[in-house]
Amino acid sequence: MRASPPERDHEALTAGERLGALRRELAARGLDGFVVPRTDEHQGEYVAARARRLAWLTGFTGSAGMALVLAGRAAVFADGRYTLQVRAQVDEALYEIKHLTEHPPSKWLGEALEPGQRLGIDAWLHTERQAETLRKACEKAGAELVACDTNPVDAVWRDQPPPPLSPAVPHPIEFSGRSAAEKRAQIAASLGEEKADAAVLTQPDSIAWLLNIRGGDVPRTPLALGFAILDADESVALFMDRRKLTPETEAHLGNRVSVAEPDELGAALDALKGKRVLADPNSAASWVFRRLGDAGVEIVRAADPCALPKACKNAVELDGARAAHRRDGAALSRFLAWIAREAPAGGVTELDAMAHLEALRRKGEHMRDLSFTTISGAGPNGAIVHYSATEDSNRHLAPGELYLVDSGAQYLDGTTDVTRTVAIGTPPDEAREHFTRVLKGHIAIATARFPAGTTGGQIDALARQYLWQAGLDFDHGTGHGVGSYLGVHEGPQRISKGGPGAALKPGMIVSNEPGYYKEGAYGIRIENLVTVVAVPPPPGAEKPLLGFETLTLAPIDLALVEPALMTEAEIEWLDAYHARVHAEIGPQLEAGDLKWLTQATQPLKEFTAA
Amino acid sequence: MRASPPERDHEALTAGERLGALRRELAARGLDGFVVPRTDEHQGEYVAARARRLAWLTGFTGSAGMALVLAGRAAVFADGRYTLQVRAQVDEALYEIKHLTEHPPSKWLGEALEPGQRLGIDAWLHTERQAETLRKACEKAGAELVACDTNPVDAVWRDQPPPPLSPAVPHPIEFSGRSAAEKRAQIAASLGEEKADAAVLTQPDSIAWLLNIRGGDVPRTPLALGFAILDADESVALFMDRRKLTPETEAHLGNRVSVAEPDELGAALDALKGKRVLADPNSAASWVFRRLGDAGVEIVRAADPCALPKACKNAVELDGARAAHRRDGAALSRFLAWIAREAPAGGVTELDAMAHLEALRRKGEHMRDLSFTTISGAGPNGAIVHYSATEDSNRHLAPGELYLVDSGAQYLDGTTDVTRTVAIGTPPDEAREHFTRVLKGHIAIATARFPAGTTGGQIDALARQYLWQAGLDFDHGTGHGVGSYLGVHEGPQRISKGGPGAALKPGMIVSNEPGYYKEGAYGIRIENLVTVVAVPPPPGAEKPLLGFETLTLAPIDLALVEPALMTEAEIEWLDAYHARVHAEIGPQLEAGDLKWLTQATQPLKEFTAA
Repeated sequence: MRASPPERDHEALTAGERLGALRRELAARGLDGFVVPRTDEHQGEYVAARARRLAWLTGFTGSAGMALVLAGRAAVFADGRYTLQVRAQVDEALYEIKHLTEHPPSKWLGEALEPGQRLGIDAWLHTERQAETLRKACEKAGAELVACDTNPVDAVWRDQPPPPLSPAVPHPIEFSGRSAAEKRAQIAASLGEEKADAAVLTQPDSIAWLLNIRGGDVPRTPLALGFAILDADESVALFMDRRKLTPETEAHLGNRVSVAEPDELGAALDALKGKRVLADPNSAASWVFRRLGDAGVEIVRAADPCALPKACKNAVELDGARAAHRRDGAALSRFLAWIAREAPAGGVTELDAMAHLEALRRKGEHMRDLSFTTISGAGPNGAIVHYSATEDSNRHLAPGELYLVDSGAQYLDGTTDVTRTVAIGTPPDEAREHFTRVLKGHIAIATARFPAGTTGGQIDALARQYLWQAGLDFDHGTGHGVGSYLGVHEGPQRISKGGPGAALKPGMIVSNEPGYYKEGAYGIRIENLVTVVAVPPPPGAEKPLLGFETLTLAPIDLALVEPALMTEAEIEWLDAYHARVHAEIGPQLEAGDLKWLTQATQPLKEFTAA
Repeated sequence: MRASPPERDHEALTAGERLGALRRELAARGLDGFVVPRTDEHQGEYVAARARRLAWLTGFTGSAGMALVLAGRAAVFADGRYTLQVRAQVDEALYEIKHLTEHPPSKWLGEALEPGQRLGIDAWLHTERQAETLRKACEKAGAELVACDTNPVDAVWRDQPPPPLSPAVPHPIEFSGRSAAEKRAQIAASLGEEKADAAVLTQPDSIAWLLNIRGGDVPRTPLALGFAILDADESVALFMDRRKLTPETEAHLGNRVSVAEPDELGAALDALKGKRVLADPNSAASWVFRRLGDAGVEIVRAADPCALPKACKNAVELDGARAAHRRDGAALSRFLAWIAREAPAGGVTELDAMAHLEALRRKGEHMRDLSFTTISGAGPNGAIVHYSATEDSNRHLAPGELYLVDSGAQYLDGTTDVTRTVAIGTPPDEAREHFTRVLKGHIAIATARFPAGTTGGQIDALARQYLWQAGLDFDHGTGHGVGSYLGVHEGPQRISKGGPGAALKPGMIVSNEPGYYKEGAYGIRIENLVTVVAVPPPPGAEKPLLGFETLTLAPIDLALVEPALMTEAEIEWLDAYHARVHAEIGPQLEAGDLKWLTQATQPLKEFTAA
């Protein structure tokens, strides 16, 4: 979990002037309104500077959200992670602030649109499913949804940045574990199940996985932006700016992968006329569906065929993940030891801590980037779920308060994402009770056993049950999928109350991150990455059993654990986890840090007695 | 949970002859296949004799299922509750047997249909959603789905029974708690949210609830079959055979409810041209959608507007449910005392037990019918989830075996559904372990706390977790909604791994019935009905909390509980539940039964010590 970095605006226009300019542009085009989502043409979570239209227009920099602009009213929609941030960033004199799911855009449109009005969208920036939802909302209000040829925000955004041109490089087999040729053969064969002749791939992480390439077009995720058409004959047409391809990459792609410019995609889709072509209505742009439909292509609406195979990591990727987590855990443990030494005196700020942790991580082998901007929240800032510290918000880590740090890195052999919450000095009793309820939920997921076919949605309540008993909850998912040197958020699996997600399968990596947030006081989150594994069946078992192997290795602050609320089995898990952390991380540490780690990972009963 | 009663066939034709006759009829109509579902025109679970086409054709009498008949192949689909039953009833020389969800009809059609073939359906017998699924499966295979004007099964079923004509009677306000006029006003107003001018109601339980009427057209559920159109002006057009309406009922319906014959529905739908009309694609027949579409009506696809208000029982209905459960619990306790006295000697059969239990129940005030045919399964028969005892299958309750009894009744003030599993003599240790795991899951649901907005799907795993840990599971839902002197199965809420269901709201009644089934040995199920209640918030709670109040009152067999597997909190729940059973049921019992009840409801530790 993490927020996007703050996106600064170097144009002199105020938010009101931008909104006015957009409204004039809409009026000139005969539109009564326009939808400005957070996403780009690839529906990705990290977007290039060029695509940050929502932030440019409204100031809101969260990783999900939407603005609706009508002539007389406008609104910004954000989810529970951004409740506080959106109010801090968006001028409420210009925009109503609404909860993305509790008062969704479709509902707002029902109240605000008038019969006969025309609402514009950029069909590149909405999935087909999202466009359908908007279309229905318009129809219900007697209005019309109109796909614009060009984006009216771009028309008024004078110094909009150009598209990125970072190099696309091969991702070696020592990290990917399987050749691109093998993957192309597997996915092409899977098209047979849908009787499809080809598939349109619009998610850059799917293309990166399929072709074993990585790039740098967006922050924090090694993506090379582009599109692809995979043919059932195992060939691929890749639509990507050729300037991004090094000679080595061209050689790596081989003669079964042709390369064309992104603006040639439309003509290539037209040329599929008469064929059955798979496109994913939940991830591919509505533009793709319109173009295919107009060309007379028979569209097979089905999931991106790379999504599930990409999610189930192979043995090489899993070994890479374990190695990356050992390095990452050593960096985080050094950091936590430093916090324990330095913070109680009051000399460490959130930004100091972010910088120190990044410096420690960057020493690790295969480290390429952070996997997201570190969330470093002291005291009440920890309660802002996707907090991003700035010079203005920067707080000292103060005795008697909690400090929450959510961070991760992109290593060539694996992507990490870990959250620890620690007490600076002596924590309030209430915080210890809350932390322990969160920890019990974390352990319930870590130790869960379930049969094949179980989804993350089915086990989500295991993480929440101890908070629910106290009338508490957290307003984000319990877990998201994580890629292998790819997106720190990926599907199709997740652990969430928002929807089941795909059935959990061996090799999938998901986060286990229950939390609790006391507004104005503190935030608590305990996050480890786990991978789905087959577990040995107990005597008498009738079904193969799945469970989780925890990948993340770093101490959980014993000063925040209330032993009286823990069961014996939970204490056993915690002690065994800490013993493992000590065994795997300890040998990497220098004497001072090792001494701290030994203290931090002792059995709970010894810690409490000390 | 329960199976349908065995449906006997008085025609002389064999299953093979029926299948042959249907195939000839299909050939004569130019069809390559036909779909025979279990449902009737109302998509109900209990169907009149006339609608038992699946049973007539294939012999399979389960409460859900489907047959697909092609010229050269045919298949019957049943879910996990009927795995054993379907194989016992259906001739595998004629039909392939498939699991309804693991190998669904759409998949089978993909394998069996050939391009250019025409598959027929009776559009009255499939919801719009089901018809769409079949249509897609046909399209994928290059085949065509064809809606037949008349049902080809009816054409070859010579002595098909006529439609039922049971009287429809008013359901008094002392049981319903709210007048039909109030309900009409509420539901008509709710149409405004969808900006609909009218709603087509095809579910007889919705109509029964809305108009406060009950009937007897199908077994075990007091339904008067019919259709209705609710206008936003609060008037209702009821399409029901007038011969069913007594003068008292006509007076009760009043002058805002007009009555027409069922075959006038089509013309009434045509007359809605130009209006916005709500119909539920998940419950209304595809025929309704086709007719509305052909007539140029603007269809609003949305949930049956009566379903949710019907599910949330009012205070009068809840008081009625509590009273009905006190009577029902007394009858069941007398029965269990009788079993404890009589069965160990080996003189009681499954059919004896069914008859005795029904006789005891029928003595209760307001009792009108069983709510389903009792499942009375001794030893291995208990493992057949929807077992229905017959003279052929009838077993003695034998010492050393388990006996499972799932039963319920329709009282004017409430519908009951309860399952108890008891040991006859000394049970095997393995059965005690399994029973205790099921009980722990039952208690986890009974004591669950959750915030508003939580669905049954989210808490389903709480019931399964202790079985999952042992590599075990059960292949049915954990809970279904229950009506108020209406269907023993109703939506929109449920507790299931198959889908979330509606958010749980105060007043909803659901079953809590985890189980475990050891094929060839025994079945275990512990089922109470519970109602969703607001629970007092603990100190520091930030959200209103919901939980369950258990309605069912009958002892849980302590001889099957392994105390070493229970936590202190679980034992406390069990003891408190038994104390309540004793307090509420005890005063209704005669001395001998009371003595047994006192033993059966003692604290677990005293029972174990004895």
